[in-house]
Amino acid sequence: MLSDAIKDEGVMRRVLKRGVHDIIVESEFVERLQGGRPLRLKMGFDPSATDIHMGHAVGLRKLRQLQDLGHKVVLIVGDWTAQIGDPSGRSATRPMLTAEQVRENAATYMAQFFKIVDRDRTETRWQSEWFGEFSLTDVIGLTSRFTVAQFLARDDFANRFKANQPIAITELLYPLLQAYDSVAIESDVEFGGTDQMFNLLVGRDLQGMVGQTPQQCFLMPLLPGTDGVQKMSKSLGNYIGIDEPPDEIYGKTMSLPDNQILPYSEYLTDIADDEISEMRAELAAGSVNPMELKKRLARELVAQFHDADAATNAERNFERTVQGGQMPDDIPEFALPAPDALAGMRLSRLLVDAGLASSAGEARRLISQGAVQIDGERVSEDSAAGIEVGAVLRAGRRRYVRLV
Amino acid sequence: MLSDAIKDEGVMRRVLKRGVHDIIVESEFVERLQGGRPLRLKMGFDPSATDIHMGHAVGLRKLRQLQDLGHKVVLIVGDWTAQIGDPSGRSATRPMLTAEQVRENAATYMAQFFKIVDRDRTETRWQSEWFGEFSLTDVIGLTSRFTVAQFLARDDFANRFKANQPIAITELLYPLLQAYDSVAIESDVEFGGTDQMFNLLVGRDLQGMVGQTPQQCFLMPLLPGTDGVQKMSKSLGNYIGIDEPPDEIYGKTMSLPDNQILPYSEYLTDIADDEISEMRAELAAGSVNPMELKKRLARELVAQFHDADAATNAERNFERTVQGGQMPDDIPEFALPAPDALAGMRLSRLLVDAGLASSAGEARRLISQGAVQIDGERVSEDSAAGIEVGAVLRAGRRRYVRLV
Repeated sequence: MLSDAIKDEGVMRRVLKRGVHDIIVESEFVERLQGGRPLRLKMGFDPSATDIHMGHAVGLRKLRQLQDLGHKVVLIVGDWTAQIGDPSGRSATRPMLTAEQVRENAATYMAQFFKIVDRDRTETRWQSEWFGEFSLTDVIGLTSRFTVAQFLARDDFANRFKANQPIAITELLYPLLQAYDSVAIESDVEFGGTDQMFNLLVGRDLQGMVGQTPQQCFLMPLLPGTDGVQKMSKSLGNYIGIDEPPDEIYGKTMSLPDNQILPYSEYLTDIADDEISEMRAELAAGSVNPMELKKRLARELVAQFHDADAATNAERNFERTVQGGQMPDDIPEFALPAPDALAGMRLSRLLVDAGLASSAGEARRLISQGAVQIDGERVSEDSAAGIEVGAVLRAGRRRYVRLV
Repeated sequence: MLSDAIKDEGVMRRVLKRGVHDIIVESEFVERLQGGRPLRLKMGFDPSATDIHMGHAVGLRKLRQLQDLGHKVVLIVGDWTAQIGDPSGRSATRPMLTAEQVRENAATYMAQFFKIVDRDRTETRWQSEWFGEFSLTDVIGLTSRFTVAQFLARDDFANRFKANQPIAITELLYPLLQAYDSVAIESDVEFGGTDQMFNLLVGRDLQGMVGQTPQQCFLMPLLPGTDGVQKMSKSLGNYIGIDEPPDEIYGKTMSLPDNQILPYSEYLTDIADDEISEMRAELAAGSVNPMELKKRLARELVAQFHDADAATNAERNFERTVQGGQMPDDIPEFALPAPDALAGMRLSRLLVDAGLASSAGEARRLISQGAVQIDGERVSEDSAAGIEVGAVLRAGRRRYVRLV
């Protein structure tokens, strides 16, 4: 099966090009594929982040494609590196997690991971298997192979160093530990975003130094978030989680700027290459309403992370509520506090309690933007006084509760 | 006894000032002395160097003075840091030692150490007691407390970094491990040369961070070597080892430039302060031949590291041979190879074999400088052909063998 698939030019183009920023070194990777041995595909994750979003899905879908060609994913739970915190692309030293937090987060993460990646072709390893017994001698052996200058040349370190922002010495250990993971599991290929290139190359170098065949590095493009500008990330609030309800995935996708329709379609769906070329031509010619292509994308994503029915329902809901201005079919209920409690209560507090805003700050912002309605009437005061049972509270375009 | 001594102003001046570059923080140190508790005086050594020379003796004599006041030396065998190599004041990453080399070197070192320091008031600790069990968690805990910039600000690191010379990441661990030693033994005072200030202060900081009373730092002046310019060090060949034979200590001391007479006398002998002031005045006024003061210094040093008779003999030998041009009383013998072996042999090789030069390079240099004589005749060819049994071979001013 391995050897058949790599003779199919279409399959190879899809696997090696689509949603791939770069492969270091592509010719070596093709050679390994031709070797016919199932490859060990290293994918590390940092359990300080619990949620998988579409940005991660780009790489996980690539893993799945390679699994479908017969290769094996080695999922590394970064329970040690998470205690340090990956400095890649960050501008500040971050607080460490407890071991307990790491374990909880890892469980949440994996539940989502296996929605994309095939569990049966995955070997899960914890860094503690090798770092639990790591001695000072091991640390010395590892740190002696690289210089401070090599590491400070990395963009984010260089910028922080120049700006006199603190870089804990610990942070230099991060890429070394990640690199050692490659040695520990004898990785053939490691996957990461383009901002992980440095770390992936350290792994490649270290394997060569200890006599292993250096791994190939699959660099995935960084997916912009729903703002269309910044890298998708939970902390920036511009993410679409793969575990979100159908209406959220659909609605957030519809909020994308038009210039993201093609990259999202290419990186996150199985829409055929020919069709994507067609979409590109239509968009360039102005012969299609981008909204229609975006709805197609939104359906594809809901269908992929939920199912086809959910996609149909989400689209209907979106058309009724956001496009048609009507209320959705089923509105969640929220128990309104007693009138005397309500009298002195801020509306922002009620919005948070009812799950319509993630923080009092966001709630106040929504109120001041005129994005909060009670029974279809805009509210401008941050007060909950006088709200009655039976009213429908709405925040933004898609969030409703019925007060009971 | 502790409290009595610190009331003696002369004793205190001698302990706190003579041969001390700086104490950080002196007022805190005086307070600790006044506390009356025997202090734990940390002295770490790097067993990558086997020989104690006069440069080290400055600090070891200070330890002994404090032992004589009732305090305790904690000698730390740097069997872990030696595997890294102290980057302080060095301009290049250096090779690591094996554990076996470290053990052998430590034994040689300690035999010399206890010629100065009182063994009965010394507690010897090996870093492996705490670093043998050091985990990656410990390393992370340690490295997270300091930043890369703090460490790269250290002069030698800064210079190497600017000059694009490699600094292994391991070298950043060195000051951290040395600092952790202070925590492990609950050091009250650490001793080191002025080039160790950074490392000593990291120890002081770390103790404060983990809730210990921060140690005081005794910074000892760096003793120039026999060239009078560079810091005394074995690798520069400008050292006087405390374990060298009386004639060597005497002769090397006599080779010092005159401007080193006072610092050597002050840092390395018990010549009274008043006498040293007198010597200073005489030298300034030109009312004394510096040679006489140097002979006094040379006698003091031989007497200290051997005994008074050895000092008398060394002086007599020096006067006969170097000053009087005669041969010393007892010349070591060396078995001359057979004439046919000798015919094709280089003289430089013979000089090394006979112990008159430490390397073929040094031997060739001595020959080209005209510093090699056979029976009083200068030799300029690097050939051993024709040398006969009974001849006296001389290299430099003080080294002889009789060929038998």
